Amino acid sequence: MYQHETQIRVRYGETDQMGIVYYGNYCLYYEVARVEAIRDLGLTYKDLEEAGYQMPVVRVESKYIQGAQYDDLLTISSSVRELPDRFIVFDVEITREKTSIHLGKVTLCFRDSATGKRVRAPEMLLEKIRPYFH
Amino acid sequence: MYQHETQIRVRYGETDQMGIVYYGNYCLYYEVARVEAIRDLGLTYKDLEEAGYQMPVVRVESKYIQGAQYDDLLTISSSVRELPDRFIVFDVEITREKTSIHLGKVTLCFRDSATGKRVRAPEMLLEKIRPYFH
Amino acid sequence: MYQHETQIRVRYGETDQMGIVYYGNYCLYYEVARVEAIRDLGLTYKDLEEAGYQMPVVRVESKYIQGAQYDDLLTISSSVRELPDRFIVFDVEITREKTSIHLGKVTLCFRDSATGKRVRAPEMLLEKIRPYFH
Amino acid sequence: MYQHETQIRVRYGETDQMGIVYYGNYCLYYEVARVEAIRDLGLTYKDLEEAGYQMPVVRVESKYIQGAQYDDLLTISSSVRELPDRFIVFDVEITREKTSIHLGKVTLCFRDSATGKRVRAPEMLLEKIRPYFH
Repeated sequence: MYQHETQIRVRYGETDQMGIVYYGNYCLYYEVARVEAIRDLGLTYKDLEEAGYQMPVVRVESKYIQGAQYDDLLTISSSVRELPDRFIVFDVEITREKTSIHLGKVTLCFRDSATGKRVRAPEMLLEKIRPYFH
Repeated sequence: MYQHETQIRVRYGETDQMGIVYYGNYCLYYEVARVEAIRDLGLTYKDLEEAGYQMPVVRVESKYIQGAQYDDLLTISSSVRELPDRFIVFDVEITREKTSIHLGKVTLCFRDSATGKRVRAPEMLLEKIRPYFH
Repeated sequence: MYQHETQIRVRYGETDQMGIVYYGNYCLYYEVARVEAIRDLGLTYKDLEEAGYQMPVVRVESKYIQGAQYDDLLTISSSVRELPDRFIVFDVEITREKTSIHLGKVTLCFRDSATGKRVRAPEMLLEKIRPYFH
Repeated sequence: MYQHETQIRVRYGETDQMGIVYYGNYCLYYEVARVEAIRDLGLTYKDLEEAGYQMPVVRVESKYIQGAQYDDLLTISSSVRELPDRFIVFDVEITREKTSIHLGKVTLCFRDSATGKRVRAPEMLLEKIRPYFH
């Protein structure tokens, strides 16, 4: 398993008039978390795009436990529990002062950006993440 | 079952550099669809808030089939398949030129905005939607 | 002068915890207004992009008079007061129930998307808008 | 003059299909910059709200020089050049690798959140910022 943690400060523009983070904005947090998780492996999502790969999201599940609030400092933990093949799945847990307030699960596929066709996880990603699965 | 259809035009600001709608922005479309579905019942979500109720989202599931693109005119169909009680569930299907491109399922609870406590679906909503369940 | 009016319903996700539309989201409204203004001329911004032009924003000025609120139905009026040449300028006025609540001025340039270089307004746009300037 | 610098990493969801940050999203960057500028003074915008003040934006001017791109690490410098009274003005400069790519100027007023009326800058802010103006 590959696991990574990052922190995010809630922006004012991410809240709505209920006084909590708008429910669609958690997707931005998932994104930051997985981008930083990939960066910590030693490559960047930008490298992947420049090498001709895109990673469109194909499935999201979100469970809202408590609403994150303006200026909260959130810890976002992402876990990849299975070696990516046709898909990569990030399990996300968001905690605020050690309390779990949100769970997410994001499944992405890999696409050749020239042809638009789905492909297997690129070797440049696999060689970085494989060591975590032995 | 209560069903409602609305249309949305994709905004430029909703796309990302992959050239498709950013995955988190579908939540805005779900919102427009359920707000219009409620309006068509003869009350508004704003009325509900002014009467002291809030409807925070507690769960979302999204399945991305094809990416919506800039300027697409999307049809968003929302269905409430069970009479709301502690929760209300909207099943959402987004179609583009009669092809299904996205599925969503959004579960919301009801909250008393003064106490912050969860409550049952308010009667002002139930009296409007109940006729669709006989 | 070319003038156009469109309407927008404020979305919940566009508000912030102050209970009004987040100040950055007016840019989405300007966008919808100018896109619809162009569409009404008989071409679309998408057509322009497909013909190899992009219109990046180079300057924005916004004056916030009253905050737009959730579910408000806003009227957005866009005016092009000078025939576009190297730039096109949209003057935007947002009204709510006939009261002016927001003013904006958006200047865009024209870019050849292949070379990335700035160009003059494309003829396909000029031929549609020129009649309004005689 | 009070000056502060902060850094921001461009998120994927902040780009649009032109491959640059959507023009309205710079407002999020201005917000992060001024919030961190205030925090560095030794109070938070959240403290101000909890003390009964709000700071709605009344005016924005933006000049787009070069488009910020996905994953760019931007430096955002905010300057308050005059002691706040009825308004506070933040001059923002965004640089990427020491090149200025964007300028902004954001004017906010102060409002008593209970009455909704405009007020002078609260003393709790002035006492922190006054030393920078002697």
